[in-house]
Amino acid sequence: MGLSENVGVGLLGCGTVGSSVVRLLAESRDEIAERSGCLFEVVRVAVRDDERPRDVPLPPEAFTTDASAVVAEPGVQVVLEVMGGAEPARSLILDALAGGKSVVTANKELLANHGAELFEAAAKGETDLLFEAAVAGGIPIIRPLRESLAGERITRILGIVNGTTNYILTRMSEDGTSFSDALVDAQRLGYAEASPEADVEGFDAAAKCAILASLAFGTPVVASDVYREGISRVSGEDIGFAARLGYDVKLLAVAELEDEQVAVRVHPAMIPRDHPLAAVRDAFNAVFVEGPHIGQLMFYGPGAGGDPTATAVVGDLVDAGTRLIRGSRGFVSPYHAERVIRPMDAMETQYYLLLDVLDRPGVLARLAGAFGDNGVSIKSVWQEGTGDDALIVIITHRANEGAVQQTVTDLRALDVVLEVRSVMRVAGEE
Amino acid sequence: MGLSENVGVGLLGCGTVGSSVVRLLAESRDEIAERSGCLFEVVRVAVRDDERPRDVPLPPEAFTTDASAVVAEPGVQVVLEVMGGAEPARSLILDALAGGKSVVTANKELLANHGAELFEAAAKGETDLLFEAAVAGGIPIIRPLRESLAGERITRILGIVNGTTNYILTRMSEDGTSFSDALVDAQRLGYAEASPEADVEGFDAAAKCAILASLAFGTPVVASDVYREGISRVSGEDIGFAARLGYDVKLLAVAELEDEQVAVRVHPAMIPRDHPLAAVRDAFNAVFVEGPHIGQLMFYGPGAGGDPTATAVVGDLVDAGTRLIRGSRGFVSPYHAERVIRPMDAMETQYYLLLDVLDRPGVLARLAGAFGDNGVSIKSVWQEGTGDDALIVIITHRANEGAVQQTVTDLRALDVVLEVRSVMRVAGEE
Repeated sequence: MGLSENVGVGLLGCGTVGSSVVRLLAESRDEIAERSGCLFEVVRVAVRDDERPRDVPLPPEAFTTDASAVVAEPGVQVVLEVMGGAEPARSLILDALAGGKSVVTANKELLANHGAELFEAAAKGETDLLFEAAVAGGIPIIRPLRESLAGERITRILGIVNGTTNYILTRMSEDGTSFSDALVDAQRLGYAEASPEADVEGFDAAAKCAILASLAFGTPVVASDVYREGISRVSGEDIGFAARLGYDVKLLAVAELEDEQVAVRVHPAMIPRDHPLAAVRDAFNAVFVEGPHIGQLMFYGPGAGGDPTATAVVGDLVDAGTRLIRGSRGFVSPYHAERVIRPMDAMETQYYLLLDVLDRPGVLARLAGAFGDNGVSIKSVWQEGTGDDALIVIITHRANEGAVQQTVTDLRALDVVLEVRSVMRVAGEE
Repeated sequence: MGLSENVGVGLLGCGTVGSSVVRLLAESRDEIAERSGCLFEVVRVAVRDDERPRDVPLPPEAFTTDASAVVAEPGVQVVLEVMGGAEPARSLILDALAGGKSVVTANKELLANHGAELFEAAAKGETDLLFEAAVAGGIPIIRPLRESLAGERITRILGIVNGTTNYILTRMSEDGTSFSDALVDAQRLGYAEASPEADVEGFDAAAKCAILASLAFGTPVVASDVYREGISRVSGEDIGFAARLGYDVKLLAVAELEDEQVAVRVHPAMIPRDHPLAAVRDAFNAVFVEGPHIGQLMFYGPGAGGDPTATAVVGDLVDAGTRLIRGSRGFVSPYHAERVIRPMDAMETQYYLLLDVLDRPGVLARLAGAFGDNGVSIKSVWQEGTGDDALIVIITHRANEGAVQQTVTDLRALDVVLEVRSVMRVAGEE
């Protein structure tokens, strides 16, 4: 074994991820030292309540409620931020970077809203800012995007980046469970994030989408740039029709480069059953990456959970420590272009529509007319009689979002259309 | 745009991958410089025939047949080896490393047989040796294993790492194509490597398995350590039975840590249809990684092809260039343990057996006896009558390889057994 150098770590937050990190570092201490030359020591830990007993191999005096003191502590060379939320995490990280300390963070909210500020501070401080754990938990996706694909011009990312919603959709699809029962199950299993809205309405996925788009396209993208639609309106009926037509329904984060503009959105989507993303079940996450040279790549794994996320944090920590002892730190901003965010209306994809119509001759021609008038081309139609009414499922070719929304308005105005029950986007096909 | 530093590249080999690399570097020159601070210039290229016209943006005088001169050229700071094969690649890389040059290679054969020697030379030369493209073409797997998972104790890797055989098995399974017709198709589509035997008999997969095992378990593993069985004996009948029982047949590379010993093997295997590896179709590759903290990860993408492999090579080149201009080079050996290679007899997994037996009372009891005598526990039995004979499919619980081989010998000796038609391992289940 070669000589190892001590690296002092200051931990901000000691919840599920934080305590997993402390345990993992203790378990793998010698192996990590052997591999990296860094002997990591958790010097101080900032917590909300420093009296609470914790199942981590650290002495009680390591804990403090004063987070600023952890950042300022001279023995702390790397700050690990796993407290989450915007403030005080943002100020603490900015202080750490200004003080020349390396920072490892798992904070998606912060990166998706204040990424540019943090990146600038890291570059200015000539230090490091690593955040593998901020997107898709334990799945290595940030490092591959930033390093392995440095020569590729990524054109599209499709991600299943929220485990709770994927779990709910899997239960609805495989067991016929209702949305609300599946949500309760997800909460019972501990999959749900702090509030169910953050998951179910797509806020969590939108933050991750913004981070992925920033890195893939080298331009600032924030959470509020991302069009967002959750899964609460997805019905068992939609999932049933999707299955019959050979699709699965997933909450997708989509980031695309179109005419040099960035299109970013989170919404439920039907994907063909033979697409690799369709095999992503339960609380698993996956990120699908496309580019002209690489073709298609997918990264699959656990998107959340203390231990998987801690694995990503420790991977970053080893990287930060190695760079520190070699004197090779220096953050390079991922931004190298200014790009316009494309409005949702300009977006193009395929669509699925479920219509409840009167079952009489000539209906289909009138429906087709509404599509044709808006320049939306129909790919397939499927009809099921139910007495006087009929259910009609229509899948379109690639069409413009604005044109499809206008088509829906026109369809609603037709006397033969009783109800436009669902409109869902289709991804991964054309 | 910040200041960029020139980095001189010497290319050894200019076949499919080499010329894709030259084109990709030319296309993305400014973007790479912007992102990394490195302005890469391909200074010299060693080829077998320097008169042959080539579709790459380089002047004719860049080409030479003298590979040693490329390595020795003072303007060459990074040597890219994409010529393949053991010699002269090995000597050229050793010379480059001894001369303090960084090396990027895509040579699986070399790493799987001479990895220890190359790693030692890279560490001694205080330079870098990067080889993302050596396993699974464009899929980032080496960097995640070495960096992102630095804190994890990997226990198992299951890989589909040969595109040709996966294409053949996909055609046999989905279209009922025969093995030989599917092989001809694969060759026509350019999937097959230099010789079909290298793919079909598992030599290519075994080399990649050795490299993955070395990195995952931190110990030298060479290609000849890997038990190897190809797909030429997989029948349409096996694939049909697998399908009926809910399995797909894949050529798997398996690397496991059992009782601190390394078990490495390549063979056809049945995997449950809901396992993420079952969704890997056609010529795609995937590497599935398991560990106690991370759970399950999978990396999916194109396992071969000029452009995808070039993407991996350029990612390594950017890394090598960045470390060079920052003065932060220094190869750290992935080896940190000496581990025994477990003999194949000691291996444990599940098995599928297809038997042709006489259809008479008491047969099943006699078959079951043969399993029981060898301590092999039966999980499920499926019987199909065909006149006087019957086909019996048996799936075992996890059992010892040696015990199963003895069971097969004992079954063959039974008068009621007409033929043991197939024995295949089952993976990804227990």
